[in-house]
Amino acid sequence: MGKSNYELVVECDNFPYYEDDRAAYTENLNNYHAFKVNGYDATLGYILNSVADQFPWSESSWKIDSGARTVTLLTPANADPALRSKLVAETITEAVKQDKFEILKGWRNEKYPVYGPGGEFLLEMERCATPLFGVVSYGAHMTGYTRDESGYKIWVPRRSKTKQTYPSLLDNTVAGGMCTDETPFECIVREAMEEASLPEDKARAGIVARGCVTYSHVRDARAGGETGLIQPEVEYVYDLELDAETIPKPCDGEVEEFKLLSIPEVKEALANGEFKPNCAFIMIDFFVRHGILTAENEPDFLLILAGLHRRLEYPTASHCAR
Amino acid sequence: MGKSNYELVVECDNFPYYEDDRAAYTENLNNYHAFKVNGYDATLGYILNSVADQFPWSESSWKIDSGARTVTLLTPANADPALRSKLVAETITEAVKQDKFEILKGWRNEKYPVYGPGGEFLLEMERCATPLFGVVSYGAHMTGYTRDESGYKIWVPRRSKTKQTYPSLLDNTVAGGMCTDETPFECIVREAMEEASLPEDKARAGIVARGCVTYSHVRDARAGGETGLIQPEVEYVYDLELDAETIPKPCDGEVEEFKLLSIPEVKEALANGEFKPNCAFIMIDFFVRHGILTAENEPDFLLILAGLHRRLEYPTASHCAR
Repeated sequence: MGKSNYELVVECDNFPYYEDDRAAYTENLNNYHAFKVNGYDATLGYILNSVADQFPWSESSWKIDSGARTVTLLTPANADPALRSKLVAETITEAVKQDKFEILKGWRNEKYPVYGPGGEFLLEMERCATPLFGVVSYGAHMTGYTRDESGYKIWVPRRSKTKQTYPSLLDNTVAGGMCTDETPFECIVREAMEEASLPEDKARAGIVARGCVTYSHVRDARAGGETGLIQPEVEYVYDLELDAETIPKPCDGEVEEFKLLSIPEVKEALANGEFKPNCAFIMIDFFVRHGILTAENEPDFLLILAGLHRRLEYPTASHCAR
Repeated sequence: MGKSNYELVVECDNFPYYEDDRAAYTENLNNYHAFKVNGYDATLGYILNSVADQFPWSESSWKIDSGARTVTLLTPANADPALRSKLVAETITEAVKQDKFEILKGWRNEKYPVYGPGGEFLLEMERCATPLFGVVSYGAHMTGYTRDESGYKIWVPRRSKTKQTYPSLLDNTVAGGMCTDETPFECIVREAMEEASLPEDKARAGIVARGCVTYSHVRDARAGGETGLIQPEVEYVYDLELDAETIPKPCDGEVEEFKLLSIPEVKEALANGEFKPNCAFIMIDFFVRHGILTAENEPDFLLILAGLHRRLEYPTASHCAR
């Protein structure tokens, strides 16, 4: 008996919901400090207490309130993102130097953005540090598929054996994290070229935006590094219908091979836990959007739909000029 | 300046979120009694205190706990849906006789189901009474559209001037509430024939399931009847791409006329508030799913996506044999 689709959704979206158990939710939050930036009321992420205790916060840049359980970056209210990012980077660098956190060994040298209320860009930080601060991270995932009388087939890559995270698991056709200043569509076009060797013109003309999924993940041992870290994520979702002649090919070494799988084959791989958890999440969303999973054939249909679109408890990005 | 898409989402999904303001959320809940059925822990809906005070609850069938603010149907734990439904119907009939509630004047003579944990069917009650109990109601909405080089066009009906609710507003191509024992797909096929004169074979072959939207609506004066009633709803979402020859036609008197509108025309009608609120909700979901609204052109994209898929705080239906 394999995993149900709802079990796969909850593997990803496993931060408790207030409505399910009010006392347990509130008690769980006691394990975390709220990450704040001076001048803004909003909680930008949750930092595990043990992380807050070990981080080499400098007194000049940070205020730690153990009673209220807050960690606040003490930049002036009118500071610019560059100043905030610089102070955060200094603190993270010091933590690396003191070898404080396992997760910082996965240094990516990529900068991830952190947004405040109204989607204001507040600062950026090294990608691998984001789960320590519990801030929202952003990515774009695309499903490449073919369709004929026999139904859908989906291009499924297997992650390289040498990937830092989730080696050898199945993935979405194209997926990647969004660095500062990148828009979701530009990110997915870039990744389509880099990861799957898809020509830029085909990608630009054919990729269609299909919304996004959101979840709040509590990291366990499989993710590597410290456990219990909160990782809220937004994944912008794209589809690309491909003709029979267009074959995705590995390019940058992130992918071992691509296979064109039928829907029953994808379902079996999902139930067997062969997909990277957030890629299973995206596959289930694809199944819902294309009428493969319906209210009549999926007993947990409503729980799945809500789980795929968790309302995050933090300010999130706006990639659109207002 | 018309209404933004996010404003339209919030017009529908206007029950507060705990995460936005914990104190306000908790205080707001003090205005309601929890509706329960003996033998089940779950809250099945929220009854406005003023409604709980006025309902002619019979002492033999109901237990009202003003301190805990609960209204519990006292059927035995092993009662069947028929018995529960009978007692609920007697109470509603008595309320009609005593002319207690404005909303009961909109008698529909249709039975709506109420589900317990795990999607168990617990009872059914007259459609127009469901907002008094605050229970989840279910419907199916379909967007009929055409597509060519010039883009999408959407078949938009105008509701009859004589409709009880939201007369003369714009609607989705086909939409209807789901009575007990009806599955979402059968409901939308039936409504496609009844409301839009679409032939059954075309409907069955062409209608594609696209997930669902969910929201928790607090009724205001525009809905008619008592205000402040909570109406959580699940709307199963369907698309039907139509060829140029297939023209939806009014049939059962619910619809005044159908017009084929371009996307800019639909957007304008949305911004002008010309759509029935939950139909605006469905149109926005269509725009997201078809890449018309994207992260790059909609500033509130992430808030909209989460709002369209609220996680309801009550047990919900399962239309699938486990």
